[in-house]
Amino acid sequence: MKIAVLGTGEVGHTLATKLASLGHEVVMGSRTADNPAAKEWAAANGASHGTFADAAADAEIVVNATGGLVSLAALTAAGAENLRGKVVVDVSNGLDFSDGFPPRIVTPDGVSVAEQLQRAFPETRVVKTLNTMNNAVMVDPSRVPGHHNVFLSGDEDAAKSAVRELLGSFGWGEDQILDLGDLTSARGVEQLVGLWVRLYGVLGTGDFNFAIVR
Amino acid sequence: MKIAVLGTGEVGHTLATKLASLGHEVVMGSRTADNPAAKEWAAANGASHGTFADAAADAEIVVNATGGLVSLAALTAAGAENLRGKVVVDVSNGLDFSDGFPPRIVTPDGVSVAEQLQRAFPETRVVKTLNTMNNAVMVDPSRVPGHHNVFLSGDEDAAKSAVRELLGSFGWGEDQILDLGDLTSARGVEQLVGLWVRLYGVLGTGDFNFAIVR
Repeated sequence: MKIAVLGTGEVGHTLATKLASLGHEVVMGSRTADNPAAKEWAAANGASHGTFADAAADAEIVVNATGGLVSLAALTAAGAENLRGKVVVDVSNGLDFSDGFPPRIVTPDGVSVAEQLQRAFPETRVVKTLNTMNNAVMVDPSRVPGHHNVFLSGDEDAAKSAVRELLGSFGWGEDQILDLGDLTSARGVEQLVGLWVRLYGVLGTGDFNFAIVR
Repeated sequence: MKIAVLGTGEVGHTLATKLASLGHEVVMGSRTADNPAAKEWAAANGASHGTFADAAADAEIVVNATGGLVSLAALTAAGAENLRGKVVVDVSNGLDFSDGFPPRIVTPDGVSVAEQLQRAFPETRVVKTLNTMNNAVMVDPSRVPGHHNVFLSGDEDAAKSAVRELLGSFGWGEDQILDLGDLTSARGVEQLVGLWVRLYGVLGTGDFNFAIVR
């Protein structure tokens, strides 16, 4: 499948590498056409890179792995015409570290980044997922033993099914994928990251995850 | 032990009942001296009731089970002189349902209710705990099988130890109590409640809890 990964940070890098290793045709997108990290990644993985627009243009699925504070700008640069009708897998978190630790979660008026993206690009099909864990766990859930969960939020069932399939290819079992309902539920998972950051400090490792037990 | 439970809602009711059943001398506090719910509860449990100030005056430990939006007003009514030097167990959540579902989490400038209380009453010893689950699970963790967690946030170790003991008497094992550090970590657990509300809707039961798996 043709997949655009927007963002050249650790999360984008990890997701793009996993997707390429699974045989997808991955294009890593960044603000500029000559981003050194994207170039290096593409060369190492026999894949491509380009601007956000280049990456999104031919993609069937677009992964937003940019920081939550700049996601709207990144998708704007990708272009509404390049995003139209496509599933946008939003794994971002709107963390603001400008006042130090603990970071502030930036959700204007309580609205999640995912909803902001969906509102700005109504013809895309935004699905929020994977933002509640370390990037290594995203693509290899077996790093955390036993029962733990990944959440899914989105307004369209077909789009969520496509994301379920991707998650399955990463190793997530059907019983681990918890569908929270429509995209307003992305507020809950985006707010979860404040606790994640604290737990990371206390546990001293990113190899943990949340489980819902009942 | 002499314990004040501020709040006559479901959470206050459940906690006060459990504490009374464990042999503590419980006073349920409310805005007015003649609150019918408090009166009825006190009669049924051989306990006392009164104003927030009445309840706090003789207490060794004060449990804040009022809604997060009115907690500051409740503690102000209890009176700084009645709270001085005491452990305040804050189980509140600042949920605003005025715009419907999902509720907005009200944490002005990202600061938790617990921190607001600690700032307003610097001579109390605020410990945040138990706010991440249904009230039935708070006092009977065995309602949820297997491994799951309760969190602890506070600036003072001695105060947290006192709360650990209370939690132990409710049935929480030492391995279930996860100390997140100072009171700024209350932001993480107060923000968690947005996801809790969503999960409650999806799972159709309050008998669940969060577990940290690693």
